[in-house]
Amino acid sequence: MATSLLQELIESLRCLPGVGPKSAQRMAFHLLEHDRDGGRRLASLLSEAMEKISECSRCRTLTEQDVCSVCVSDRRDVSLLCIVESPAELAAIEESTNYNGLYFVLHGRLSPLDGLGPKEIGLDRLESRLDEEVVKEIILATNPTVEGEATAHYISELASSHGILTSRIAHGVPLGGDLGYVDGGTLAHAFAGRQKIE
Amino acid sequence: MATSLLQELIESLRCLPGVGPKSAQRMAFHLLEHDRDGGRRLASLLSEAMEKISECSRCRTLTEQDVCSVCVSDRRDVSLLCIVESPAELAAIEESTNYNGLYFVLHGRLSPLDGLGPKEIGLDRLESRLDEEVVKEIILATNPTVEGEATAHYISELASSHGILTSRIAHGVPLGGDLGYVDGGTLAHAFAGRQKIE
Ligand SMILES: [Zn+2]
Ligand SMILES: [Zn+2]
Repeated sequence: MATSLLQELIESLRCLPGVGPKSAQRMAFHLLEHDRDGGRRLASLLSEAMEKISECSRCRTLTEQDVCSVCVSDRRDVSLLCIVESPAELAAIEESTNYNGLYFVLHGRLSPLDGLGPKEIGLDRLESRLDEEVVKEIILATNPTVEGEATAHYISELASSHGILTSRIAHGVPLGGDLGYVDGGTLAHAFAGRQKIE
Repeated sequence: MATSLLQELIESLRCLPGVGPKSAQRMAFHLLEHDRDGGRRLASLLSEAMEKISECSRCRTLTEQDVCSVCVSDRRDVSLLCIVESPAELAAIEESTNYNGLYFVLHGRLSPLDGLGPKEIGLDRLESRLDEEVVKEIILATNPTVEGEATAHYISELASSHGILTSRIAHGVPLGGDLGYVDGGTLAHAFAGRQKIE
């Protein structure tokens, strides 16, 4: 018979995306029956990560440092700035392409109906960066959705008012697809085939 | 760029059954971006569960008490004893059937090649129970696999040497299926249609 602590654990596992009641139960029983060390380690890393990981003060990706390892590196091309919607997408680009510039993470996209305007996605901070840094090209890697396209368009106008070239990743990302989970080859291709926005 | 704590968290999430590298990454980013409270709660419940949940001293299912809620209840029929391979299967029977007796959990099945003999699956403790308690019928709910059947056969002989009736759940559990994940109706049917072993 399930005890109350066990039931709470099963319920709590459902905060993980894609985990329904049956798989939550399976996960709880698996850890308790076969992998208590794994369960303890996961508990401690989860707790540490929830406290220590926050946003990079420069690019807003997730990091346990004040400034993330990409921003702090002296081997990146500081004249290139890639705009992504989420840290997952930044990670996918790092894994799959040889892009060597910097990033800026929006944590969302322009969505007036959801109350997400330019400030909510950090565009005031992006503009400060454009004022202070030597950015020559902005690569727009927002998702190919209606809102992602509108966001790309908005940022391209912002960039052009600063006299900065803008490009949009293009070939290969399937329309309506989720950029964070596209295969690496497709993503690399999209980077290589980016188009200048006139 | 993934930081080291983030990478450790993603790696650690793979201790969950059915979670590959991509879904582990998705889970980590989801909690960090959208549900830190859920992540903290999961961390604390995991840690508490790994320390506090152990085996019921009577039936060996998982519980945070010394004796589980089924064994401690005075509304169960103590003359019926159902033998299951795992706590997940006990939970499935409790959820789906109106079985009202007690349980004994083997935490496995007889498997000589893996070094699992009668003692390893607790049959010495089961025999003490048969000596001390007033069990009239043993219901064998081990899985319909070769090893599950061999285990059922072994226990039926043990029971018969104690003059106890034995039955085997039968109709509806698909051969080779996993008893913990059969739908409730099938499982209820299997209980109702159990066959006496002569
Ligand atoms: Zn950064
Ligand atoms: Zn018990």
